[in-house]
Amino acid sequence: MENDHRGIENAAEEPISDNGRRELPEADSKKERGDGEEVKELSVEQIFESKRVPTWQEQLTFRAFVVSFFLGVMFSFIVMKLNLTTGIIPSLNVSAGLLGFFFVKTWTKFLEKTKLLKQPFTRQENTVIQTCVVATSGIAFSGGFGSYLFGMSERIAKQSTEANNPQNTKNPELGWMIGFLLVVSFLGLFSLVPLRKIMIIDYKLVYPSGTATAHLINSFHTPQGAKLAKKQVRALGKFFSFSFLWGFFQWFFTSEDSCGFQKFPTFGLKAFENRFFFDFSATYVGVGMICPYLVNFSVLAGAILSWGIMWPAISTKEGDWYNTDPDNPNSLHGLQGYRVFIAIALILGDGLYNFFKVLSKTLSALFLQLRSKQASIIPVRGTSPQTNDSKSYDDQKRVQLFLKDQIPTWFAIAGYLTVAVISIITLPHIFSPLKWYYVLVAYIFAPVLAFCNAYGAGLTDWSLASTYGKLAIFTIGAWAGASNGGVLAGLAACGVMMNIVSTASDLMQDFKTGYLTLASPRSMFVSQVIGTTMGCVIAPSVFWLFYKAFGDIGLPNSEYPAPNAIVFRNMAILGVEGFSSLPKNCLTLCYVFFAAAILINAVRDASGKKVSRFIPLPMAMAIPFYLGAYFAIDMCVGSVILFIWEKTNKVNADAFGPAVASGLICGDGIWTLPASVLALAGVKPPICMKFLSRKTNSKVDTYLSTLS
Amino acid sequence: MENDHRGIENAAEEPISDNGRRELPEADSKKERGDGEEVKELSVEQIFESKRVPTWQEQLTFRAFVVSFFLGVMFSFIVMKLNLTTGIIPSLNVSAGLLGFFFVKTWTKFLEKTKLLKQPFTRQENTVIQTCVVATSGIAFSGGFGSYLFGMSERIAKQSTEANNPQNTKNPELGWMIGFLLVVSFLGLFSLVPLRKIMIIDYKLVYPSGTATAHLINSFHTPQGAKLAKKQVRALGKFFSFSFLWGFFQWFFTSEDSCGFQKFPTFGLKAFENRFFFDFSATYVGVGMICPYLVNFSVLAGAILSWGIMWPAISTKEGDWYNTDPDNPNSLHGLQGYRVFIAIALILGDGLYNFFKVLSKTLSALFLQLRSKQASIIPVRGTSPQTNDSKSYDDQKRVQLFLKDQIPTWFAIAGYLTVAVISIITLPHIFSPLKWYYVLVAYIFAPVLAFCNAYGAGLTDWSLASTYGKLAIFTIGAWAGASNGGVLAGLAACGVMMNIVSTASDLMQDFKTGYLTLASPRSMFVSQVIGTTMGCVIAPSVFWLFYKAFGDIGLPNSEYPAPNAIVFRNMAILGVEGFSSLPKNCLTLCYVFFAAAILINAVRDASGKKVSRFIPLPMAMAIPFYLGAYFAIDMCVGSVILFIWEKTNKVNADAFGPAVASGLICGDGIWTLPASVLALAGVKPPICMKFLSRKTNSKVDTYLSTLS
Repeated sequence: MENDHRGIENAAEEPISDNGRRELPEADSKKERGDGEEVKELSVEQIFESKRVPTWQEQLTFRAFVVSFFLGVMFSFIVMKLNLTTGIIPSLNVSAGLLGFFFVKTWTKFLEKTKLLKQPFTRQENTVIQTCVVATSGIAFSGGFGSYLFGMSERIAKQSTEANNPQNTKNPELGWMIGFLLVVSFLGLFSLVPLRKIMIIDYKLVYPSGTATAHLINSFHTPQGAKLAKKQVRALGKFFSFSFLWGFFQWFFTSEDSCGFQKFPTFGLKAFENRFFFDFSATYVGVGMICPYLVNFSVLAGAILSWGIMWPAISTKEGDWYNTDPDNPNSLHGLQGYRVFIAIALILGDGLYNFFKVLSKTLSALFLQLRSKQASIIPVRGTSPQTNDSKSYDDQKRVQLFLKDQIPTWFAIAGYLTVAVISIITLPHIFSPLKWYYVLVAYIFAPVLAFCNAYGAGLTDWSLASTYGKLAIFTIGAWAGASNGGVLAGLAACGVMMNIVSTASDLMQDFKTGYLTLASPRSMFVSQVIGTTMGCVIAPSVFWLFYKAFGDIGLPNSEYPAPNAIVFRNMAILGVEGFSSLPKNCLTLCYVFFAAAILINAVRDASGKKVSRFIPLPMAMAIPFYLGAYFAIDMCVGSVILFIWEKTNKVNADAFGPAVASGLICGDGIWTLPASVLALAGVKPPICMKFLSRKTNSKVDTYLSTLS
Repeated sequence: MENDHRGIENAAEEPISDNGRRELPEADSKKERGDGEEVKELSVEQIFESKRVPTWQEQLTFRAFVVSFFLGVMFSFIVMKLNLTTGIIPSLNVSAGLLGFFFVKTWTKFLEKTKLLKQPFTRQENTVIQTCVVATSGIAFSGGFGSYLFGMSERIAKQSTEANNPQNTKNPELGWMIGFLLVVSFLGLFSLVPLRKIMIIDYKLVYPSGTATAHLINSFHTPQGAKLAKKQVRALGKFFSFSFLWGFFQWFFTSEDSCGFQKFPTFGLKAFENRFFFDFSATYVGVGMICPYLVNFSVLAGAILSWGIMWPAISTKEGDWYNTDPDNPNSLHGLQGYRVFIAIALILGDGLYNFFKVLSKTLSALFLQLRSKQASIIPVRGTSPQTNDSKSYDDQKRVQLFLKDQIPTWFAIAGYLTVAVISIITLPHIFSPLKWYYVLVAYIFAPVLAFCNAYGAGLTDWSLASTYGKLAIFTIGAWAGASNGGVLAGLAACGVMMNIVSTASDLMQDFKTGYLTLASPRSMFVSQVIGTTMGCVIAPSVFWLFYKAFGDIGLPNSEYPAPNAIVFRNMAILGVEGFSSLPKNCLTLCYVFFAAAILINAVRDASGKKVSRFIPLPMAMAIPFYLGAYFAIDMCVGSVILFIWEKTNKVNADAFGPAVASGLICGDGIWTLPASVLALAGVKPPICMKFLSRKTNSKVDTYLSTLS
């Protein structure tokens, strides 16, 4: 791999993209991988050579936004339903890309026949639709209708004994919800715009979902006659179908959350208790095939460290270090506290280290450029044409188009400041306990956290928006204090933070898709703004419909129990008591891991390439701390498959690996659509595939024989 | 496919082997398949050209029988354990072939190093070992230590109210058990020896296990330098490992019979109740890949007819046609009676039709040959060299060697008569209610049934020995009558019949293996005789050990409940009441299906090739009647895989299909070995993978929450 960071003058020899991260998983990246083989097949952008790239204004068509609106409404319904039932929301990028293609293609084919078609359907327009739909439906998640926002309501407050007073509650109303979302949702967009070049071009962050979507969109629009591309599309289609059918098949056996393949104790029940199992998720096997080996290895290392060693060790201290509340086993006063806060410490340590590293480099480059009076585009103007000669044709083309339509940094900064000021003035009027200075502090730290989240999502595909939201609950809640409506303030602050970090990582994901489909960053940005605006109106309206249509939303045992609303409110109640209420030694451990994350990064940067590729990434390690090892195992299965494939047939693996991975991710992704429709229609899976120990099973058998 | 039956002079144009049965699934059979492609790779026998085929005496080495003895003892233990626990015995051919190779190869390698090796290890010797071990361990199954033989004992008789008297019981003793087995076990060998050419060469019966074993043995002994063979071995090895590991993985989730992948309600719980499900058995997917499409289609058609239509329809008549005994839901007075007897009717119809067809052709050919004074080998001398010119090289070579070492028919007839006479004299002394004329009648019909069973096993790999045994229970038991010790007579007759039909189909299976490995039929026969003799001593001894070591064998809820012993005794008790005690209309249906089987065969023979390949085989249809549709679905999965493979890459599918199928069968087969060892050691799987309806599951969840 060549060092393509020389644009950052005087930079030390430690490009992060060398840290084992694989290059773009495209068929044409073979040349770069340095195995010396000649590329005989055309690369992706050579295949697309004949197609003119439309200007960014042309990419933004009216029909694209009409389709986006309808898809946005549909996805908002789906996300809302999931919010209010289990709270687990899968990535919908792929579905959006595919459905956008399907609708516009049908439409343009119809117009072609009637000879009314003026503008052909391009992959850039497809990307615009996908971006807009993701932005719209993203608000349905980050709006917290199943978590912090609904957690403010009296109905949820009644389920707890503490902080059940008017000062700490606010019932949902359509008006203030739309207003709240409008003032907080655009900050994320402005906050990371200046960093897009660093994250996409210099860091070469993978953004597995974004890459998969781009692959899908490219494959749809591949001109006729490209042999390899056709084969890739076939491979993608094959694994897409497999993954879709597999999702369908799994569905039948999942009558309850505790049933089915996603709870398969692959390594035995003991390991399952410690969340070590292979959950047969085609999505994460695909993600593992797209992510670099180092990321997958880091995730696994983190899983082993946390669920294999630390949590079992800490759980032996039960009664001494902490007590388990039988009514609330996931209380942050218990073991869950260690999991959440140590993960946050690691993420913050890694995120801050990288943020300051980039910041210092950016500033020094800026300083040098200003001094040499060059016309410069902030923050860095790294990849000028003459430094690109060692790059692949695709990369050159993509970089060229990515850098063509700039979004000026003054615009981003001015936008951020304007929205921030409006928001600082408005928010205290919506939530009286949320003082203006809380919001100000939140907005000072928000860009750092947004960077951390976008960076982590780029590595591993996990957006940790709700984790950052929880952090805000604790800090702002503790600052306000229970008597001053700290619970409400904490939940509101959570909303502010979640919206920023979530939209920021979505935007960067879409920039990656745009980069790979030659869509302009400007059209991406505009599409995201339009999508977000639509989301700010659609999502609260959909929630309002649910809220009014089903009178028992949020009550336990109802059809829509909204479990996360209660969880978030309880966290806020805990938060106002401050960090001191955390279990014993938890804060100490947090300090240790925060320091460790910085130290590991420093060692990585100081050591040579040969050593550093065996040093795990703290950010990737942190994610299983909180969630468990299961997806780490999925991802490693993906790694192992790719590794064996590369060993047996490297040319094949390079050409078809990404297509297969994308197929796996996309098929499973699309399956969530019919699955959600089935759930909305109240169709429940008929069978529970259950796993019992031999002893429990014989008891159950005895019980069942008494039933019949 | 060319008609290679022209040796049967004046035969009508209806060779059974044309009825859709595929030729030998060897890489070299491509030429025969008539797709016109030139075979460039060497065929199996061309690869082995350099290796001299030893004479039949040379194939029978002392070391082979030493190894066989030890393996026979080991397998007898395994089979005995399975007999006494669940009663389900898998095919052990493959394990025997593989382990035989492993032991002798290790031994000869050791000798090679010490330069003491006189005779190299050949594939023929390997086949001899495999044959001998299968014969030895076969007795442990057909000896009925878990079924009819143990069902005679007082301990089992006590568990029933009827026929619990000295006249109808006989306790196991080492002496009479060995004597009984010695006088009944050799009849099967003699009975079918004259038909081997018809079944192996003319009918080209597949014998999936035998073919797979032959493939395995050939691949082990393939000389260096054969590129395709090496690739095939690698494919076999890959799928062998996969299948083995898959069996291992499945084991963990099968803490009870009702758990695990083999009870996976793939098509829903309703379908599962009617035994329609895919049970993830690698063995039967492999069998499906080896069996011709027509067989798999017939099996599926039979499954749909019986479990999809007939049994559900008959079950609506419950209370009118039959009553279900809640204590004994599998009573032959209930629905099970229809299943068992209609299946028997179909099998008998098909078997008898084919038997008489062959007999008439054989006799007419014999008559013609005798008249023309040719030196003839009975029954037919079909494949003289000059009719072979259109055959593949492999087939020519195999036919030549298969026909070289003849076993004279006079020898077979004399042997059969001698053993029958000894047996007719001896058996009434062992079991006083078993009159000599019962035995005589049994021995008159035995060859027909043995032919039916060997023919069916050749088509589908299922030996239905115990079904024929049940037939004997009913006929002889009813004939004797309860007051004359009919229960004991029926069980003894069952033993006589089971031993004959079981050893006959084993022998034919081994002839097929021998045919494909160029082992002489004579050495196969001798090896089978030696193996059977060893089995007649080893099996009762092993049973005696179990019986003495574990005092509670045969008692319900003990470690060794021997469920089939009770089942067989109950059937005998039912049998003495005669067929009239069967459920309403059952006998009528039997007549209908018996006639249908004959009719279908007649139509098949009368219609042209184009039509007949869509007419199912009654024999194959009958098997799922009794067992359920699950293995039919496995086999069809195998068919579908092969079909798609052939559509996408015919050359590849032809070359590697049989290797992959053999790998799947062998891996799963070998896994039974460690699984049995684990069971012997008392190691039970830790987890039950259970499938519950949503409703039952919520009840179980409530129950489980009260437990903790």
